[in-house]
Amino acid sequence: MKFQYKIPLLFIALLLAVTSCKSQSKSVSNLNSAHPNLILTKKGVERIRAELGEVPLFDATLAKVKEEVDAEILNGIEVPIPQDFSGGYTHERHKRNYLILQKAGVLYQILNDEKYALYIKEMLFAYEKMYPTLPIHPQTRSYARGKLFWQCLNDSNWLVYVSQAYDCVYNYLTPKERNQLEKNLFKPFADFISVGNPQFFNRVHNHSTWGNVAVGMIALVMDDKELLDRALNGIKTDNIDPNAKDNDGGFIKKAGQKVGFLANIDEPFSPDGYYTEGPYYQRYAMYPFLVFAEALQNVKPEMKIFDYKNGVLLKSVNTLLNLTDSDGEFFPLNDGQKGMSYYSRELVSSVDIAYFFGGNQPELLSIAKEQGEVLLDESGLSVAIGIRDGLAKPFVKKSVEFRDGADGTQGGVGILRANGSKDEIILVSKYLAQGLSHGHYDKLSFSYYEGGNEVLQDYGLARFVNIQQKGGGNYLKENTTWAKQTIAHNTVVQNETSHFGGDFETGSLNHSNNYLFDVSNPTIQVVSAKESNAYPGTELHRTQFLIKDEDFENPYLLDIVTVKSNTENQYDLPFYYLGQIISTNFKYETPEVLNPLGTKNGYQHLWNEGLGNSTSGNAKLSWFNNERFYTLTTVVSENDDLIFARIGANDPDFNLRRDPGFIIRKKNVKNAQFVTVVESHGHYSPVSEIATNAFSNIKNMEVVFADENYIAVSIETVNGDKKIIVVSLNDASKSKNHYIKIGDKAVEWTGAYHFNNFN
Amino acid sequence: MKFQYKIPLLFIALLLAVTSCKSQSKSVSNLNSAHPNLILTKKGVERIRAELGEVPLFDATLAKVKEEVDAEILNGIEVPIPQDFSGGYTHERHKRNYLILQKAGVLYQILNDEKYALYIKEMLFAYEKMYPTLPIHPQTRSYARGKLFWQCLNDSNWLVYVSQAYDCVYNYLTPKERNQLEKNLFKPFADFISVGNPQFFNRVHNHSTWGNVAVGMIALVMDDKELLDRALNGIKTDNIDPNAKDNDGGFIKKAGQKVGFLANIDEPFSPDGYYTEGPYYQRYAMYPFLVFAEALQNVKPEMKIFDYKNGVLLKSVNTLLNLTDSDGEFFPLNDGQKGMSYYSRELVSSVDIAYFFGGNQPELLSIAKEQGEVLLDESGLSVAIGIRDGLAKPFVKKSVEFRDGADGTQGGVGILRANGSKDEIILVSKYLAQGLSHGHYDKLSFSYYEGGNEVLQDYGLARFVNIQQKGGGNYLKENTTWAKQTIAHNTVVQNETSHFGGDFETGSLNHSNNYLFDVSNPTIQVVSAKESNAYPGTELHRTQFLIKDEDFENPYLLDIVTVKSNTENQYDLPFYYLGQIISTNFKYETPEVLNPLGTKNGYQHLWNEGLGNSTSGNAKLSWFNNERFYTLTTVVSENDDLIFARIGANDPDFNLRRDPGFIIRKKNVKNAQFVTVVESHGHYSPVSEIATNAFSNIKNMEVVFADENYIAVSIETVNGDKKIIVVSLNDASKSKNHYIKIGDKAVEWTGAYHFNNFN
Repeated sequence: MKFQYKIPLLFIALLLAVTSCKSQSKSVSNLNSAHPNLILTKKGVERIRAELGEVPLFDATLAKVKEEVDAEILNGIEVPIPQDFSGGYTHERHKRNYLILQKAGVLYQILNDEKYALYIKEMLFAYEKMYPTLPIHPQTRSYARGKLFWQCLNDSNWLVYVSQAYDCVYNYLTPKERNQLEKNLFKPFADFISVGNPQFFNRVHNHSTWGNVAVGMIALVMDDKELLDRALNGIKTDNIDPNAKDNDGGFIKKAGQKVGFLANIDEPFSPDGYYTEGPYYQRYAMYPFLVFAEALQNVKPEMKIFDYKNGVLLKSVNTLLNLTDSDGEFFPLNDGQKGMSYYSRELVSSVDIAYFFGGNQPELLSIAKEQGEVLLDESGLSVAIGIRDGLAKPFVKKSVEFRDGADGTQGGVGILRANGSKDEIILVSKYLAQGLSHGHYDKLSFSYYEGGNEVLQDYGLARFVNIQQKGGGNYLKENTTWAKQTIAHNTVVQNETSHFGGDFETGSLNHSNNYLFDVSNPTIQVVSAKESNAYPGTELHRTQFLIKDEDFENPYLLDIVTVKSNTENQYDLPFYYLGQIISTNFKYETPEVLNPLGTKNGYQHLWNEGLGNSTSGNAKLSWFNNERFYTLTTVVSENDDLIFARIGANDPDFNLRRDPGFIIRKKNVKNAQFVTVVESHGHYSPVSEIATNAFSNIKNMEVVFADENYIAVSIETVNGDKKIIVVSLNDASKSKNHYIKIGDKAVEWTGAYHFNNFN
Repeated sequence: MKFQYKIPLLFIALLLAVTSCKSQSKSVSNLNSAHPNLILTKKGVERIRAELGEVPLFDATLAKVKEEVDAEILNGIEVPIPQDFSGGYTHERHKRNYLILQKAGVLYQILNDEKYALYIKEMLFAYEKMYPTLPIHPQTRSYARGKLFWQCLNDSNWLVYVSQAYDCVYNYLTPKERNQLEKNLFKPFADFISVGNPQFFNRVHNHSTWGNVAVGMIALVMDDKELLDRALNGIKTDNIDPNAKDNDGGFIKKAGQKVGFLANIDEPFSPDGYYTEGPYYQRYAMYPFLVFAEALQNVKPEMKIFDYKNGVLLKSVNTLLNLTDSDGEFFPLNDGQKGMSYYSRELVSSVDIAYFFGGNQPELLSIAKEQGEVLLDESGLSVAIGIRDGLAKPFVKKSVEFRDGADGTQGGVGILRANGSKDEIILVSKYLAQGLSHGHYDKLSFSYYEGGNEVLQDYGLARFVNIQQKGGGNYLKENTTWAKQTIAHNTVVQNETSHFGGDFETGSLNHSNNYLFDVSNPTIQVVSAKESNAYPGTELHRTQFLIKDEDFENPYLLDIVTVKSNTENQYDLPFYYLGQIISTNFKYETPEVLNPLGTKNGYQHLWNEGLGNSTSGNAKLSWFNNERFYTLTTVVSENDDLIFARIGANDPDFNLRRDPGFIIRKKNVKNAQFVTVVESHGHYSPVSEIATNAFSNIKNMEVVFADENYIAVSIETVNGDKKIIVVSLNDASKSKNHYIKIGDKAVEWTGAYHFNNFN
């Protein structure tokens, strides 16, 4: 991902030669002043041409794109009859075609070299020839099959990119040629993915966003008002059954729901810029959202699209950048493939557009610098100039809460960060709404990171995106049977059933509630939320502290879950640690034969690798990963089961990773408290073979008080220091005074929690 | 591991100030010209002082060491009563003490600052006070318990380092002080680890090397001829039982065997500089071997120790550097902890000493540059000057064979490398002797690497070196029950028993035989060896080719194992791939309950995760790891079992990694051929989500000819090209003409193998 500033001087010289040479002849784009006007603009192109050879990052990106496109032109035009799923030849070929077409358009405009226009023209006419007789795609899996691809979604991707190419060669083509392309290709294409597939187009969903934008982009190029209205506001009449679902089990459309591009901004984005499907899909949707916004700003500036809903589109770029770990990888909330990061092409666009249209925030330049490439338009040029001129400032990710829901009232996600920079510790606490069809049943779940590595993981999804051998690259059945289930997450499972009974409809009606988020004190940050609907009759309340204490080498996590129920239940709380077990402080048995832990709701995918009980009041598990030691200490009773689990049972296609988990099980209780500390400590290098600070610093932990309103926990370190933390469970106000008596000690404080010495 | 050239200017200024200031006063080390003379020499110190501030890498190392020692001096002197295993407090404290003492001695000499001498003096007298009344160490596990540490080995480590410190302050101390230290500490210490523990001292083993060197180093400082002779030639009479074994199951000493430092060069080093215990222990032994050689060269240059056995000590440094992967990590042949690399302090010493005493090879400078630090003696100074002056040349690791055995006739290890630099593919083919007590029962095993990552792994050892929670950091019982067993390796197991019945004595009497090693043709490199003793009555013959073929994206491995036996047997050949299964071309069943694959010889540690059979003649397994695809294609019959295994059964302390393996099982046959290709192909990035070249390039593989003397394999690619490889199994001579008839085709060639088109 490192950007190379070295650009062959020869190449720059050539660029300048081409430019200056052509500018002496009659410029092609001067024939008609209206195009390009979508992403590239006449003014922008002029500015770019003037700066060529002067802006390293822009020049480097241009050189790379030119090399790529030139190789494709040499390779010749291939427009095969559609046949394959993603990962297959025809899919990947058509995908490559639209990406290259868009780039060729840019090169034509910037370099003014006719070969790119010719290439685009020939390829467009190859599509124009094929499209009118194309049947629906032969693969039948999708709820909305496309023509070029197995789903309308990918057809829409095609049109979003190809519209840009068309805009770039608009004036290069004759009116007759344009007419032929629009009549036989673009108009029917736009109709097919909209009125031809209302169940795809008329929704609030990332799929529909792509569809809306595809139609909107081509509408702007063709100056087609009817299509533009359809893109912005949806189809008036669609006759969609309100019970219909898509392939992922998501509802197509609620009765009376607003649709179209604007509705797709209104509803899924919270006022904080959080997109309800989660960061992985927010990333995917950012490209159409922002590229169409850029186009609207260029063609219809009077719409002031970047001010829409208090400027949420630009705000969402900032939000998305904050939803990443220390390596820039997105937290895999809901369905999200791990490893996806702000180095993706969608985030390159987003960052550049947000910089250019959002007031030139210098912090975005440092991200762009890491990305090592820019958009080849005026926004990318501005970013590259900003970087060249040394304007970049560090993008510092801070502890922050993002609310979910169109009006910000449907829970949220709290991110606590400590330690800064390389060894950054991050807690991601999830108390969001369902997240549409890509949501997981994991209310009050969390994940935990150190130095860019997962310490306690969120499993992510069960899918190998675009790897054909794995179910065509689509969602695997284990995504439903495992990855979405509650037991696959670091949160409480009641009676081995998932939240909302794993029912999407019920889940979609509910959300968790934020209770407390306070990061004003950098030595003790807290996030707390409640969930009352996942298990009717049971209230879950999780409070998580990230505490810097001089007795400890690193900040540690204190995790307090209180469960209150009308009935006696079994409660499981798993911790999906990564690494190898170093030690425990309790006895356990490992079986000679491995059996699954259960038969359904995800439990069928867990092997039971061991079962223990602790008589000391505390169970400790230490493990080792990435040259560091970790210890989890949890308050337990003798009756609690301590289960060593491993993912991978009932997995006939080896679709699941064989990762471990540690489950604390409390049985036959109405109310329960799970109180756990996770320490990161010490270091071991296989080169020096020296282990430092390899042991937990906690001697004892105890719940010293618990009633309806308060829970108090004492933590004693090995050197005898004792701290107490009291949490007020029903009043989080800052000004409220509290008083409890623990044994014969009176404890008084103001505010939602109390943290102090307790000797 | 990156070296920082930034040294605070202030620090250098201070260094120079200290030096120049002190040099005006009467230099302490001028009182007696004899010391230091061991590692640092008077002349060397003068040269170093003259260069201070002029040699960046030396100055940086000095700054780092000074910072470390100064912090320890502030911390004060701790000499606790010995009590713990490695990883425990007293062990780590005494270890730290000897490391710091050695460094403080160097600082005293270089910086001429008395505080370091005083620190050494005080600590030495603290030891002098404690030692005379110290009992044997309370931990009883070792066959040779030390006094400061649980084994004499660590006591010897202590003396090797502390001798150097003593040499540095020799002239700072009064004769009376020296006499007191030598009488109460050094002499009894040297006697205890030698005549007090002949079973430790009088052996050919890395342990004894440390013992010999410890005694030899202090002998040189004290100028004690009797001790020096003991170090070089061992104790004359030891009464060691020839059947006695050490903790690792190794024999103490064969009857009549030569012992002492010189014998420890004679026997374990092959003429190629390969040390029979394997690279991990070679690395461990290199420090005493080379530091004592340096001392002998300084004090007894007439011995010409670096010429001993044709200069094998210096040659062995080069060998060891070649026994590393692309990241500089040692191949874990026999017992070896993964991750140990040429960045270890032992290799810093080795490289510097080899450079200084071995004719200034400029290739060593590039390794030293990567290491980022140097020895603080004249050898390290020379290296740092060489780097400063730009003399470094790349250290290019080539395909090479290293023979095993004192005279080079006991098998060997063949390393084939292809692709160069970052994406280097490495085959490590093992046909060595037993390797003393650290040997594994893995004749004709191999491991396979790409770009510094393991593709087919050697498990390594079952031990967490110096991690106290894991059995005191010592070998775990699973090292014997799993890691040493044959089934833990990528080689043939007959009837689920290990080679030599897992009997160390039998194994020690035998070795494999190299048959062919030819890397003269970079497009087809080959290594081949035979093993006739692992299973009496059965001959194993493995031939491995690394082939660059333009039909393939990357070089691929062709692995041909022929088994010939007098009796019908079951043969298992495992491949320990790493990563996640992407696809197979055969049907298999996965069980609902996991059972161990067997009951003993390592099989008890494997879960049986699936069982398949192939009816197509070829079984294919594709997996994904580190963003790359891999496919194994193997020729099978319908009767062969294809077993998916996973390590971790019968592992009550979670000591084993849960890594997968794929086992090809041929049942009830006398003779068998295992013919397998391993391809590395394509790429997948989770950021672009684009998969390239995700499929195997092999359509079909067949054994088209097999008799006593030849085996011929055809490989057909997906585009229809067909190649044939014929191996002559009983005559590897280059000049021999061969002829066979395959069907109606005559195949003629000269030499050990034939590779050609076959259409």
